[in-house]
Amino acid sequence: MKSHTVKLLLDIQERMEFVNITPRVEDAVRDSGVREGLCLVNAMHITASVFINDDEPGLHRDYKRWLEELAPFDPSPERYHHNRTGEDNADAHHKRQIMGREVVVAITDGRLDFGPWEQIFYGEFDGRRQKRVLIKIIGD
Amino acid sequence: MKSHTVKLLLDIQERMEFVNITPRVEDAVRDSGVREGLCLVNAMHITASVFINDDEPGLHRDYKRWLEELAPFDPSPERYHHNRTGEDNADAHHKRQIMGREVVVAITDGRLDFGPWEQIFYGEFDGRRQKRVLIKIIGD
Amino acid sequence: MKSHTVKLLLDIQERMEFVNITPRVEDAVRDSGVREGLCLVNAMHITASVFINDDEPGLHRDYKRWLEELAPFDPSPERYHHNRTGEDNADAHHKRQIMGREVVVAITDGRLDFGPWEQIFYGEFDGRRQKRVLIKIIGD
Repeated sequence: MKSHTVKLLLDIQERMEFVNITPRVEDAVRDSGVREGLCLVNAMHITASVFINDDEPGLHRDYKRWLEELAPFDPSPERYHHNRTGEDNADAHHKRQIMGREVVVAITDGRLDFGPWEQIFYGEFDGRRQKRVLIKIIGD
Repeated sequence: MKSHTVKLLLDIQERMEFVNITPRVEDAVRDSGVREGLCLVNAMHITASVFINDDEPGLHRDYKRWLEELAPFDPSPERYHHNRTGEDNADAHHKRQIMGREVVVAITDGRLDFGPWEQIFYGEFDGRRQKRVLIKIIGD
Repeated sequence: MKSHTVKLLLDIQERMEFVNITPRVEDAVRDSGVREGLCLVNAMHITASVFINDDEPGLHRDYKRWLEELAPFDPSPERYHHNRTGEDNADAHHKRQIMGREVVVAITDGRLDFGPWEQIFYGEFDGRRQKRVLIKIIGD
């Protein structure tokens, strides 16, 4: 069994931002030499997500508005107890649970085994600094 | 390490529909010959989910109503920017994020290692056509 | 390829309760002898979640209030069809879908390959009895 580990560094400019990391995951799969296996991609931060969906700017705008409705940013200590610790990012911990921490993707014939529109995104909800994504590949 | 890949074809009659695919995943596990390993099951579409829960029609009815409240179907270009592209399925992209893209299930002694009520469902939110599910099994 | 399977037993006192199971998952990883691989941790119940987030009591209080807003406990048969079966836990099946069933964590150099704040929780939404968590580790 082969394994391969990559940690991506991402400079996230906005508080809430989605970055298409599919090409970098494809690079990791190619470098791994794995032909048949599984590829885990996860956020290493607890206010961020890795998710698979469409690379369409209107949809991403819709997601951001919707997540803001479901878990509004509110740095005050009233809405979120978490923000009584001096943090202001309780909303980001909630948004991340909606969008998920990780994806697991099949590798078949040496490539990500994707449907036609699947793309992998890093989704950050408390950004404006450098962030990390873990890629772990196992297989033969 | 063994690996086994199956793509299920499903004819989805309704816009929103849940299909119990557990027997077909069990078939794939048996065909794989894997005794100890992991089984990934994922939707190959970005308006659909694979999830594990109860096979109880009342619960499925509840899920559909709840998802419709959280992300209502609205083909107009006002509510969802995604629907300005000519699509009408922005709601389906949102519902899918709540229910998730994939499940990973342990294989122990050659079988899906499940709790008593766990069943695997394909959940479609923009159906009325043929859809695909990927099963990827790795192990020994 | 090595594999290792552990089933944790948890005594859940409250209806909704989060338990940090990270030390027990770390024990399983050490016992497995796997240096490079994947670790699946999943709830064996369909009214419960395994999720990764911060071990901060204020945040957990926020999650509980938020999940109660998104899917309120209501044992009557009016709100949830599922509760016409004699159950009172339809809300728990909904809360579990928000928080997820499982996590998959990379194992690198014999340890869970975590970002600085990642901790693994069992989240129960219909507790007050003994519950089970499955840990499945594969790798070399």
